[in-house]
Parts: sequence; structure tokens; C-alpha cells
Amino acid sequence: MKPAKTARARSNRNAKPLHVYYFDDKGADGNKDMKDILGGKGANLAEMCALGMPVPPGFTISTEVCTFYSHTGGTFPPTLRGEMIRAVERMEQALGREFGNPDNPLLVSVRSGARVSMPGMMDTVLNLGLNDETVEGLAKRSGNERFAWDSYRRFLQMYSDVVLDIRADPGEQASPFSLEIQRKKKARGVDSVIELEVEDLKDLVARFKKIVKRRTGEDFPESPADQLWGAIGAVFGSWNNDRAIAYREMNRIPGDWGTAVNVMAMVFGNMGQDSGTGVAFTRDPATGERRFYGEFLMNAQGEDVVAGIRTPDQIEKLEKLSPKAYKQLLRIQKKLERHYRDMQDLEFTIENGRLFMLQCRSGKRTGFASVRIAVDMVGERLISQTEALMRVDPEALNQLLQPVFDPKQLSAAKKEGRLLTKGLNAGPGAASGKVCFTAADAVAMKAKGHEVLLVREETSPEDIRGMHASSGILTARGGMTSHAALVARQMGKVCVAGAGECEIDCKKGRMVVNGTVVKAGDELSLNGTTGEVYSGSISTRQSEVLDYLFGKGRKKKASAVVEAYEKLMTWADKHRTLGVRTNADQPDQCLTAIAFGAEGVGLTRTEHMFFEGSKIDAVREMILAADTAGRERALKKLLPLQRKDFEGIFKAMQGRPVTVRTLDPPLHEFLPHEPAQIKALAKELGVTVKVLQTKMNSLQEFNPMLGHRGCRLGISFPEITRTQARALFEAACNVAKRTKVMPRPEIMIPLVSTARELELQADIVHEVAAEVFTRKKISVPYLVGTMIELPRACLTAGEIASTAEFFSFGTNDLTQTTYGISRDDGGHFIPEYIEKDIFQADPFASLDAPGVGRLMEIACADGRRARRGIKLGICGEHGGDPRSIQVCQDLGLDYVSCSPYRVPIARLAAAQAAISKN
Amino acid sequence: MKPAKTARARSNRNAKPLHVYYFDDKGADGNKDMKDILGGKGANLAEMCALGMPVPPGFTISTEVCTFYSHTGGTFPPTLRGEMIRAVERMEQALGREFGNPDNPLLVSVRSGARVSMPGMMDTVLNLGLNDETVEGLAKRSGNERFAWDSYRRFLQMYSDVVLDIRADPGEQASPFSLEIQRKKKARGVDSVIELEVEDLKDLVARFKKIVKRRTGEDFPESPADQLWGAIGAVFGSWNNDRAIAYREMNRIPGDWGTAVNVMAMVFGNMGQDSGTGVAFTRDPATGERRFYGEFLMNAQGEDVVAGIRTPDQIEKLEKLSPKAYKQLLRIQKKLERHYRDMQDLEFTIENGRLFMLQCRSGKRTGFASVRIAVDMVGERLISQTEALMRVDPEALNQLLQPVFDPKQLSAAKKEGRLLTKGLNAGPGAASGKVCFTAADAVAMKAKGHEVLLVREETSPEDIRGMHASSGILTARGGMTSHAALVARQMGKVCVAGAGECEIDCKKGRMVVNGTVVKAGDELSLNGTTGEVYSGSISTRQSEVLDYLFGKGRKKKASAVVEAYEKLMTWADKHRTLGVRTNADQPDQCLTAIAFGAEGVGLTRTEHMFFEGSKIDAVREMILAADTAGRERALKKLLPLQRKDFEGIFKAMQGRPVTVRTLDPPLHEFLPHEPAQIKALAKELGVTVKVLQTKMNSLQEFNPMLGHRGCRLGISFPEITRTQARALFEAACNVAKRTKVMPRPEIMIPLVSTARELELQADIVHEVAAEVFTRKKISVPYLVGTMIELPRACLTAGEIASTAEFFSFGTNDLTQTTYGISRDDGGHFIPEYIEKDIFQADPFASLDAPGVGRLMEIACADGRRARRGIKLGICGEHGGDPRSIQVCQDLGLDYVSCSPYRVPIARLAAAQAAISKN
Repeated sequence: MKPAKTARARSNRNAKPLHVYYFDDKGADGNKDMKDILGGKGANLAEMCALGMPVPPGFTISTEVCTFYSHTGGTFPPTLRGEMIRAVERMEQALGREFGNPDNPLLVSVRSGARVSMPGMMDTVLNLGLNDETVEGLAKRSGNERFAWDSYRRFLQMYSDVVLDIRADPGEQASPFSLEIQRKKKARGVDSVIELEVEDLKDLVARFKKIVKRRTGEDFPESPADQLWGAIGAVFGSWNNDRAIAYREMNRIPGDWGTAVNVMAMVFGNMGQDSGTGVAFTRDPATGERRFYGEFLMNAQGEDVVAGIRTPDQIEKLEKLSPKAYKQLLRIQKKLERHYRDMQDLEFTIENGRLFMLQCRSGKRTGFASVRIAVDMVGERLISQTEALMRVDPEALNQLLQPVFDPKQLSAAKKEGRLLTKGLNAGPGAASGKVCFTAADAVAMKAKGHEVLLVREETSPEDIRGMHASSGILTARGGMTSHAALVARQMGKVCVAGAGECEIDCKKGRMVVNGTVVKAGDELSLNGTTGEVYSGSISTRQSEVLDYLFGKGRKKKASAVVEAYEKLMTWADKHRTLGVRTNADQPDQCLTAIAFGAEGVGLTRTEHMFFEGSKIDAVREMILAADTAGRERALKKLLPLQRKDFEGIFKAMQGRPVTVRTLDPPLHEFLPHEPAQIKALAKELGVTVKVLQTKMNSLQEFNPMLGHRGCRLGISFPEITRTQARALFEAACNVAKRTKVMPRPEIMIPLVSTARELELQADIVHEVAAEVFTRKKISVPYLVGTMIELPRACLTAGEIASTAEFFSFGTNDLTQTTYGISRDDGGHFIPEYIEKDIFQADPFASLDAPGVGRLMEIACADGRRARRGIKLGICGEHGGDPRSIQVCQDLGLDYVSCSPYRVPIARLAAAQAAISKN
Repeated sequence: MKPAKTARARSNRNAKPLHVYYFDDKGADGNKDMKDILGGKGANLAEMCALGMPVPPGFTISTEVCTFYSHTGGTFPPTLRGEMIRAVERMEQALGREFGNPDNPLLVSVRSGARVSMPGMMDTVLNLGLNDETVEGLAKRSGNERFAWDSYRRFLQMYSDVVLDIRADPGEQASPFSLEIQRKKKARGVDSVIELEVEDLKDLVARFKKIVKRRTGEDFPESPADQLWGAIGAVFGSWNNDRAIAYREMNRIPGDWGTAVNVMAMVFGNMGQDSGTGVAFTRDPATGERRFYGEFLMNAQGEDVVAGIRTPDQIEKLEKLSPKAYKQLLRIQKKLERHYRDMQDLEFTIENGRLFMLQCRSGKRTGFASVRIAVDMVGERLISQTEALMRVDPEALNQLLQPVFDPKQLSAAKKEGRLLTKGLNAGPGAASGKVCFTAADAVAMKAKGHEVLLVREETSPEDIRGMHASSGILTARGGMTSHAALVARQMGKVCVAGAGECEIDCKKGRMVVNGTVVKAGDELSLNGTTGEVYSGSISTRQSEVLDYLFGKGRKKKASAVVEAYEKLMTWADKHRTLGVRTNADQPDQCLTAIAFGAEGVGLTRTEHMFFEGSKIDAVREMILAADTAGRERALKKLLPLQRKDFEGIFKAMQGRPVTVRTLDPPLHEFLPHEPAQIKALAKELGVTVKVLQTKMNSLQEFNPMLGHRGCRLGISFPEITRTQARALFEAACNVAKRTKVMPRPEIMIPLVSTARELELQADIVHEVAAEVFTRKKISVPYLVGTMIELPRACLTAGEIASTAEFFSFGTNDLTQTTYGISRDDGGHFIPEYIEKDIFQADPFASLDAPGVGRLMEIACADGRRARRGIKLGICGEHGGDPRSIQVCQDLGLDYVSCSPYRVPIARLAAAQAAISKN
């Protein structure tokens, strides 16, 4: 859409090569669709003028002049001058004031305005046009000499900073102007500039001019025209200042976009009690409620509202203080929202009772508001369902699902300096509780009824029960897909991962963060949505949507946001073509995911069940067995336990497909690490610690990620696969008999790199299935497929598909091997890579289309060629990432699978992907 | 070629559907090209007959009958019987004897004969046709009653074993026949069967028959026809015995090939002093010398020669003992070699002065002989240069280059049971010396003038100096491309890696291997060509070729094998299109490689120089520096040392291209591991051990192979790349000035996964080059490229090629990530994978064409599209592997690079690849 408009705008310009776009309340040269050349602010000012709204007259100098300015090292196109002179004349006519006229001076503001908002990044000059003569005119016209001289003082200061580049002298902390003001205040014995008299201000003006002379060798420019040229050049120049460049790099804004410059007549909200200024939203930006929402201050300038020195009033109060302006503002806001078909953020000024609109733009909003506004606007026939779906950032749904900090307590904590550090926002939501440094402590503390936060260097599967007992997890190492992050998201726990400034000593039960010592049992608060870590407690509350989905909230009438959420999700399901499954290892996770709308399980990691109760003992016995017979003895103990696990999952999923992965991690992950535990295990196994240690050492690997794991285990020890298959099919048969609902298991063999591996493992599965079905006198439909998680599996997918009935892309591991980056070690340099623009995004968070995606494309194409209609899915963490879901849609996958708490996000993202694709 | 012949043979058979192919000295139904249906032995017997040579009459039953037999569960095609009857009649006519005739019996041998030789794997029956009547005829005709009855006894025993399947009774160690013989010997008070009288043998025959009756319930078959059918069925059946299946799996022989059966008239070399038997080669199989070479025994059977009970005579002696037969044999061997155009291995028997040829086949030979024969035969105009090149297995060249054990001492060591264990044959050659368990000990021991073997669990870069001091390296862990194996091959050291039965305790300075204790200082011997480890010393000698290449041998006239080697290599260079470079880190390695014919350096691992002298201190200081300034201070110390390293290499390479890789391994690899060393380092750096340990811990990684290494280091610490580039360009300028030969550096950035990484690093290199060239007032031509060693680099090669002037495939790492297998950990399961036919070969030894090769293909195609004529090479270990070199040829690479000692192998393999491609 955008490029077409740009082209149209350009072709207009070819017909009449404008550099300057004039606007006033009679109309405008530009319009809202010309953001590319007018910037966002300029385009919307033009649009408001076209709608006949009271905008102070002015003009926008196009972004193309900025590009010209940059490329020519600071010169302007030759025709610019003439265009500008005409534009200023029109402003003068519109207002009946004159630029440089000592009696009735026209003053202007000069502001930057890029295609996208870059708040605070570039320079602004206000009150331009003031000089020793016009200041008197302003004083007369406003009847407020102090106001006029203070405006002049401010202008001198601002201009000298922005245009003349006069900063602090060497060795000084503050600019020479600030120092002058300090001196003056001291001399007068006052605390603030407001308390200075007119004469003081006049004296300051004189002193400021001397500073300019001293520092630049020239007089301060008295000519308003010179001032204007200087300010325009400075704004264009500021496009390439360090701050702006850094901001653009961070936000991926191309440097060649340039900024526009908006020159607008000054209006003053500080001209007296019938003047004022404010900001407003056409709906409540926090809740999305349909009500005019805003704040204002009488007798004040815009910066006073922002600065927060005086507490502004709620917009409703304006009705009394300036009834005419308020009425007009109400009409305008309604009209603007209807016109833009979106919630608007407005800036206005009232000068002597007269309303001026200074800005309008699409308003920022919370996740709650985002959902509610989109859904409400469909009801109001402002937008269509697809537009509503495209309006909501899927990630914003997190806010509706996660507990949040009490806003007041949070801002208090910030003020008190309790923010300790920031890590990766690995599991969204807010949690507060007592710190525990071991899983066992966490379980014990939780049993005593406390909320618990588990703090570890990095978690391991041994910590699972401790993580389960905790409300939040904090780690010092590991990235967005580290063990802690993965498990936390799956469990729906708050998680801050890789907070490298935390020096954790689990043995001593203490952690030091930037000098603050946190001991076991101390209160701590984690914001997993931002990655922030606070000392002390901050109270949290559970999300309404969750209350409702989990049935607790269903008794009472659903709130507006819950209703909106439900509607949006229904629409999403109608539009999406991708299925959405969940990664879940426990029946309760399955139930959560179903509540969130999951249509099946895309990944059950059988080994995640291994750490519960007596299972781990049998698992360890199996691992440390000396021979096949010993392994089979241990597996016999494990069989009924695994069967029970599977029964629970099949029952919970009520006939939905369930993908079960056979044993995947390297065996040493299941072994204890602490000497005491090792001793206990040795005793249990009836061997010496030395014998056990030797066996354990032999299992150690240099690079476990590339070691003896995945189907390699099933190949070396076929009895493991056999036992898992038996547990699975027996469970499926039992549930089928008991519940009369047929489970649909899909057995997934991990880490396949050759077709032959899958063949050998699939043979075992089919053999066991036949045996169990005969014995149980019932058959259950099932599939055997593979996790595609190695480059070689993608490259030989054609061969693999001759055995595999489905592929599920394990994009975590696939990303690791495609990039040669371990997700656990990548934390050392991935942030730096993103900063240096080497990575557009963390490839473990957002699927890498040119690399990993190209491999997936090869696999999909070859796989489909070898087996028509082969089922294709993704079960890596990317399955819950909106950008990655678009890639999956483009690849034509059948479904994505993600952790339970990301299911709603995936549903919406899938709908957006389907809509974008059309 | 083969399939076409098979087709022709089949179409012949369609015309006349033969199961039985007759042959005698008048002619044959088959010929040498029909190995698929006649097996190797049958085809060559037919060929000899067609050449009119004296072969005992007989016939071959085709492999297709074997397949029929297997598929039908042990039945024969209906037309077989008639064909066989006719064939036996023809044999009877040819010899004037009759099958089953008591006066003049025809006896036959029944032997298997598959397409390829499977020595000892299947069963054979001799003397078939004997029974209570024919034995008398044999006695009369031979005039040797004892001979006849002993033959009968042997036949009964053999047939009962092979056909009737009569083995040891339960609870007995030996077969009932052997037990009978033992009893008889005891009764007679003799030591050997030879001492038994005719009557004893007759008694044994009677007892044997009783055993058969007892065990089978039936009489021993007296009818020669029944005997023959039984034997044929048994031979076909033996195709599927466990031994044969195991052998086929090991040697990748398809099970559906089947075996042929050869039925041939028996001739007897043990009929008296004018009879004899022997084996011979048309040239010396050890040296390749052109002389008739063989051994024989008069009055003996074939098995007597093989069994080694009597010492056979050299073939020349036959001239005196059987002048007519000898003359005929000389003619025949000459004719056969000329006919087959290759050295032949012959078996013959002389019966009463009459010569019979029993077998001929292409003769096995040593590497020395292989080279010499191929080259000589070109001189003799028997074969062409390309044929000669294709005849020599490139791996066989190893024998010409490596030291070898003294054959006598070796066989003595074997007899004495000194073979301790077998590991991977990771570095070819033989070495003997005193065992050292630490690098420091090895250096010290070597300094005392001893030959040293370094024994380690696994080596690390810290061991480099110790490896250098050693003649051989033995490790308990790690595979064919483990650190030990890689470095050993590069240094040309003998290496046995991954000898898992060695329990090594370096601290205690002892190792236990299958119960034998080896202590520091004990003598040990390693055969890196076979992987064998022997206790005690076995003396070795240096190869002649090496003496010659290194100039020591040039004073005297080159020996025949050296001359042949030189010629073969010249031809190889003429035919190959691939360049051959070497992987070398030191000037002496460069010189070795040049002697071996290297045309450049394909990989210099700068970090391999880091462990020498004071360099490691500077490196460690750099790694542990707290900030950029600290790192730069340390790098300043490193700069002159690196420059000197590079100068040495550029000087040695005399203008040949030299690819230098910037720092690659994870930094923690350079840090000490032992507490004492850590303490010393802390002292040197002026920090506490605790501080040092904390810093070291922060560098630890879960999967270092996927961690902070390669160009990721250069991105994080640009000053490292800058210093290395500076050292390199300064060295190049210095050498250019001093030697007037222009070095040709090619700077290679490792582990690139995105184009941007390479851009950032290449910018630094170009910047430094410009700066150095200006300062030194001389320019050196250079290239900047990248190692393609990650799947993502292959997948985005098009983008990368916009910066890269060359690609060098790092197939070690590329294989690791494509398969998701660490080469260090793969040892746990790769051998099992090969055994289970999941891998055709170790992918780290032989390039995986469908997976890794497909990625390389993508990279080559996209790379060439983006940059015409981009230089493409390979520097992984595969660069020295003949099968992989074929893949490189097919991909159209410009060069391969390998360790110095594999350069000749690569040159020959490249020639073969080019010839095969045409």
C-alpha cells in the first residue's frame, strides 16, 4: 500500500516540484498519506487542516530536502527560498501578523517530524522570530512583559544550543547560559526562574548575547529570516546526530528516510487564565474504554504538562473552564477518530479562549486497550474483523494473560531505587516472593505457604520440581531459550533469564547484584515482561482473562476486556489456516492449553516426566546399568509409571492429537551433580562411589548438544524406545477403552540425521504397536514421524519422508546447528550481535528465514515430493513467535506448537499471517 | 561397465538358459568378464581354459542358482540336474575316469566362489566321490593305499562337518571325529595322524561312519551323486551362515549377489615325489620387482603349503625338481599377466609330473609393489598412464612415506602375545619408544635422546610441544579427527587414537590395558597404520621415499620404488585439475609439504603458534585482560612474535599462496587447567587465584564448539583481528623486500554465519593492509575470504560472496553441525552406526555427499552466481581423503588442502578423480 501512495505523491511533485507544503485551517497542500515526504507530524497537520480543524498556519519542508541537505553537506535546493517566502507570507496573511514586525510579530516553532515518531531524538526551536524589537511587540500584544522577555530568554538559550552549538565550556558541567541563570538566582536569592523579575530577564538576555558573541565571534542573529534558516538547517542536521543515529539503528529506521521540518505559528497556552494546553486520547489508552480521556493545564505551555511540575487536571474539568473550546475539542476528537478509524492521541493549545490543534496521531495503548478498542470498533462498524485482527500486536495479549504488578507499588519501588538489574524477559508476567537458591528449598518454602522465587545460576532438569513450586525464576546465565526460559514459559511461570549482573552463590545462599546483597528468604520481585528485578515485595494481581478461561470468573458476567478477548480469538480462529498445538508434558499443562485454545499437543517431552517421584530412581538405574539385562530390569520399573503419565495426557486431550517425542537428552543430564546425591545414589545402586563416578565420567561429553542423545540413544539401546512405545500404546488402549474417546498418538523420533535411523526406530514402534493392540484387543490410530532438527535431516528429507508420516521442525536445535551457536552459550555474544546489526533479531526468538527457513523450505519441498500430504508442523520455541509464524504460514505448514501460555498469541499471529498472505 | 556386462551375460543366458558352465583345457562356456554369475574363481578358471591352459576339467554352477536356492528355502531349479549330468559326463570323457567307478574313480572338489573374494568365509568339500569301493580304485591307481584311505578319512570328516552339520556333542570341546582320532593316536602312542598305519585309517573310517549313523540316523551316503548334491546345497547354504553374513556386512557386499559353486576334478600334489603344489605371483608382491615369485612343496597338498607345517621351497628350485612343469608354469604365468595386464596370483598342482592350474586372480600387493608394478607396466606398454594411476590405491602411498616395523620383530611380537589392544589408525606409520604421560615428560625424555610415545586420555593444545617431541601419540578418547589425530597427521606423527581399552592415569603415570600395566618409561610400540598397540620395543625404519624427498637420499641413485613414485606423481600432476595445498602452521611443516608437492598453504591455524615459548603468556594476558586497553597491551607483545611466525611461513612458501585463518578456538582453550599452572599464571598477572578462577569460569561454555569462537571473537575484540592482520601484512612486506619473492597471503575469516560478520572483519583487514602498505612503502597482493563451515554460511553464500574473494570449506565443522555430531563425542556411537549400516563411513573421514555435499553445492552455485570465478577450496580433513576428493572434483573446487603427509595421496586421488570424471 505504502509504496503506491509514495509514488502518487512523487508524481504530484513531478508535476509541481514542491519542497514546501503549506497548511492552515482553510486547507493544506499535503495529506495524511504523505508521511514519506511530510513526516508523520506534517502529514497529520495537513490532514487536520483539510478537515477544517483549527490548526495554527504553517508549512512542512519535505524529507527530500533533508536528503538533499545531507548529501550536499548542508546546502538547500535553490528553489526552496522562494517557496518558503511564499509560505511565510501566507501564514502572515492567515494570522494578520508579520514575521519580524515589531508591533505584531509572527513567532514560529521549528520542529522535526520523521516518517515514524522518534521522540526526543531531534532538535526543536520555539519562539523563533523574537529579537530586541519584536519582544516589545509581543509584550504589548500579550499585555505580559515578563512572559515576552522570558520567551525571548528561552529562545536565545534554545537557539544557541540547537543552532549555534554552544555547549558547556571546557571544564564546566553546565552551559554558560545555565551558569548565568544560576548566578542570577543566587544574586537574587531565589530558587527558580519564575521568581525572577522582568529586569532580571532583560539582564540575562543581554548577558546571553555577550556569550554568543564571545563563543561564535558574531552577534546573535537579529533577523527572523536568518534565524529561520539557521533553525531549519539545525533540524536537518540533527537527523544525523549521534543520538538520532543510535535510535535509528536500534529501531531499524533507514538513514535515508530523512526528517521533515514543520514551521508553525506559535500559539501560547500561557497567555493568561483563558489560555491553556493539554494532551488527550479519543479512548482510554489504559483500558480501551470508549471515553474522551486527557489532561490539561490552564495558563501553561506544553512542556509544563510533560514536565510534571504542576499536576494537570482531567479533561472533563475543561468544560467548566473553557466551555466553548471544550465543546469544539469534543467534536474534533470524535471527527478525528472517525476519520482515522483508530484511537487518536491529540495535542492542543487554547490561546485566549481559542482552540488550536497542534498534533494528532495514532495513540499508544496497553494490551488491554488494544484488544478492546479493536473489537469495539468492529461493533461500531469503523473497521472490519480482519482490520481488528491486524491492529492487535499478538505479543500484547500477554498483558491480558499474565499477572501484573500493582501500578502504584511499582512506581513507588522505582522511585525508591529498588530496581536492581535487568535480564532477559524470558517468561512474561509479574511475580513477587521469597528467594530460594535450591529447588529443595523452593519446595519446602512453598509448602509453608509462601510465594517463592527460585534463583539459580542456570536451571537444569533437576530443578523442575523447584520451578514448579515457584512463582518466578531468575537465572544469571542462559538466553531466551535456555532451560529456565523454556520450562518457565511452558509452565506459565514468570522468568528473568541471563541476568548477568547477579553474582549467585547457591551454596552460601546469597546473591550480590550491583552491590546489593540478597539472601535466601529475602523478598524479591520479578517482571518477566520487561526483565526487571526489584528488591522487596511488589504486590501482583491475576489476570481477569485467566480467571475467566479457567472457569473461576465464569460465574459473574464477563468484563468488557474478557468479552473483547473472546470475540477477537473467535475471529482469529475463523481466519487462520494454521493449526495451533501446545508443547506440554503434564495433564495440567494440557488443560491450561486447551483453555487457551490449543487443538492438540505438538510436543510432549517424555523425559520431563522423569524427574517426578520415584521415576528418577528407575531412570538412573537404567542409565547406569552395566548391560542390556540391567537396563531392561530398570525399564520394567519405569514402564507402569510412564504408562500412567501418558494416560493422564491422553485423558486430558480428549481425542486431540498428541505428539510424543521419545527420549532425547543426553543421559548424563539425569544424573545427580552434588556429592551427597551421588553418594546416596551409589548406595541405592549397591556400588561404590568410585565405580559410579567412573561410569558417570564415561558419560560426560565435550559438547553434549552434539553428543549421544536423541534417537542415537534409541539406536544404542533399542530397549528404551521399546519400553516407551509400550507405555504409550498401552496407555492409549486403556484410555480408549475407559473413556470411549480414541486417543491419537503421534510418535516422534528426535534428532534424526539419516533415513536409516528413523527406519530402525519406526520398526520398533510398529512392532510394539502390533503386539500391544493384539494383546489389548483394540487398535488405536497412530502416526510415526520425526523431529526435523538437524540440517542433514532437511537436506535428506526426501529419503526420510519415505518412513516419516509427519515432520515436526525442531527449530531450536535446527537454529543451533545451522548457525553453530549453542543457545546456552550464545548469551555471551548474541546481544552484541544484535547491537552491531549482525543479527536483525535473536535467531532463537525469531526464525531466521534466509538460513533456517531455507533449510525448512528444502525439507518441505522434498518431503512433500516423497510423501503426498505429509503432515508438517513446528514444535520449536519459534512456534509461539508471531514473526516466525508468518514464516511457517509462508512455508505452508499444517500447524505450529508452542507453550500453553503462548497459544492465544499464536492463534492471533496465525490469523494475521493468513490475512497478510492473501 | 559392470552392469553392461551383466546385461550381456544375462541376454546370453536368455538365449540358452545355463545354470552350469563347463570348462576344460579345450575351452569353456564362460569367461573372465562373467564374475557376476560365475564368481571370481569360476570366471578365471573359464578364462584360463579358453587360453588353453591345463586346468582340471570341471564346471561352475551360477550364482543365480544360489539366489534360487535361498529364495525357495533350499531347492534347485528343475533343469539343473540334466545340465549337471552332462557336465559330469564331459569331465569323465576329458579325464578318462568315471564318477563312482571303483576301478578308475573321478574325484571332485566342491568350492564356493563369490563375485569378490571372501576368504575362509564359506565351505569347501574335497575328495568327493570316495566310498568304500572307489577308495580301493584310488589306492590302486595311485599305488599308495595309505594316501587313498587318508583321503577317504579326510573326506568323511569334511563332508560330515560341512554337509551333515555334525559338530561337537553337547559338553564336548571337539567334534566326535577329532575325539576318535585323538583316541586312536593315544592307543597307538603317536603324535600325528601321519604316523598312523593304513589299518588305523581304515578303522577310523569305520568309526566315522558309525558316528554319522548315530548322529543322523542314516548311513553315510555312498552314492557319489548324492554326495555331490549334498555338497552343492551345503555350499549355497553357507552363503547365509553367520560368518559370511558378518563378513558381507563388514565389507558392504550385497546379500543378493549369491555365490557360485565350482566342481572340479581333484588332482593330487601328494601322489609322490613327482607331484607337488604351490602358489606363485607373476611379480614380487612385496617389492613389485619383475620376477616370478612363489613357493611350493613336493608331495604335498595345497593345505600343507598354507598350514606352514613344512617350510616350502622358493619357486626357482622347481626347475631342478620338475623341469618340464616349471618351464610350462613360467610360460603360463607370463601369458596370464600379459592377458590380464596385471600381476596375477596363481595356484597350481603337479600330479605325477603333470602341471594343473587351479586358480588365478589379480594378486594382492603392498603399497610399494602397487606403485612399482603400475609404473613398470606402463614402461612395458602393458597399460596406459591413466590405467597406472587408477591402479594404485592412494592410501597405499602411505606405506611409501611412513616408517615401518621390522617385519621379523613384528611377527615375533605377535607370537609372543604382545599385542595389547587396537585403537583407531589415526596417524599412519610405526613408532616405538618410551611412554610419557605428560607433554613436559615427553619433552624431557626426548631431550635425553630417547624416542618417546606420548600417552594421554585425549590431547589438548597444551600438549603440542609434547606431541612434537614424540614419535607417536596414543589416546584413549577421541576419533579420527580428534585433536590428537589432527595434529599428529599434520606433524606426520604416528597416532593411535580412541583406544578405549586403555585405562590411563596420567597423574600416577600408569596405564592398564586389558590387565597389562604400562608405566611411564616403559617401552611401547604403535602401529598407526593398523591401530595396533604392542608392549615392548619393535624396531622401525624410515621410508626410502622420504629419505629421497628430503634430500638425504639424493646423493645415491634413486631406488626403483623411489623412481616409480616420482614417475607416478608426475603423471598424477599431469592429469589432475584440482590444486593440492597443505594445512601447515610452521615453516618446517611447509617445507615438508613442498617436498611432498604442495602448491600452497590452504590453512594456517594462527593459534597453533600460540603455544610456543613466551607467546602463550602474552595470549593468556590478552584473554584475561579486563578491558580493551589491557587487551591491546598484551596484543602489542604478541605482534612481533606473530610477525616472525608469518615471516617464516612466507619465506618457506616462496611466493606460493598462503591461507591464514584468524583466531578461531574458544579462548578458554588457551588457559591452563592444572592448579599449579593456574597459580603461576595468577602470580604472573598479579591477581589472586580466585579472581583468575572467576574470570576463567566466566569463559567456560556448555558446548564450546557452538560457543564464542571463530570470527565471533574478532567481532567482540576487533583489536585481535587488527593485530593479526598487522603481523601478517608487516611480515609479508618484510619478506617481499628481503627475498624479492612476493608472498601471496589469503586472509580467511572463520565461522562466518552472516555476510555482515565477514564485512566487519574484512573492513578491518583492508584498513590495516592499507595502513601497513603505506608505512612500508610496498604493496603485497592479497585476498580476503572466509571459511565456509556452518550450514548457514552455505545457505547464504550468495550474500557472503559479495565480500568474500574466496571460500574454503571447513568440512570438519560443517560435518559437525550438519549432522549435529561433535567429532570429539561421536566416538561414543559412530563405530556402532557404521556397524549397523546407518553410516556408510565415518562422515568425519569421508565427506557425506547427500548432506554436507548438498550444502557445499548450494554454496558453490550461489557463490559463483554472486562473484564470477570465486576461488573455491577445502581445508577440512576431508581434503586428504580420496573418496572426498572425488566429491570436491564433482563440485568443481579449485583446490584441496590437507596435512603435509597426505599431499601425495591427495595428488594421486585428484588425478583419479579427474580421470573418473572424464
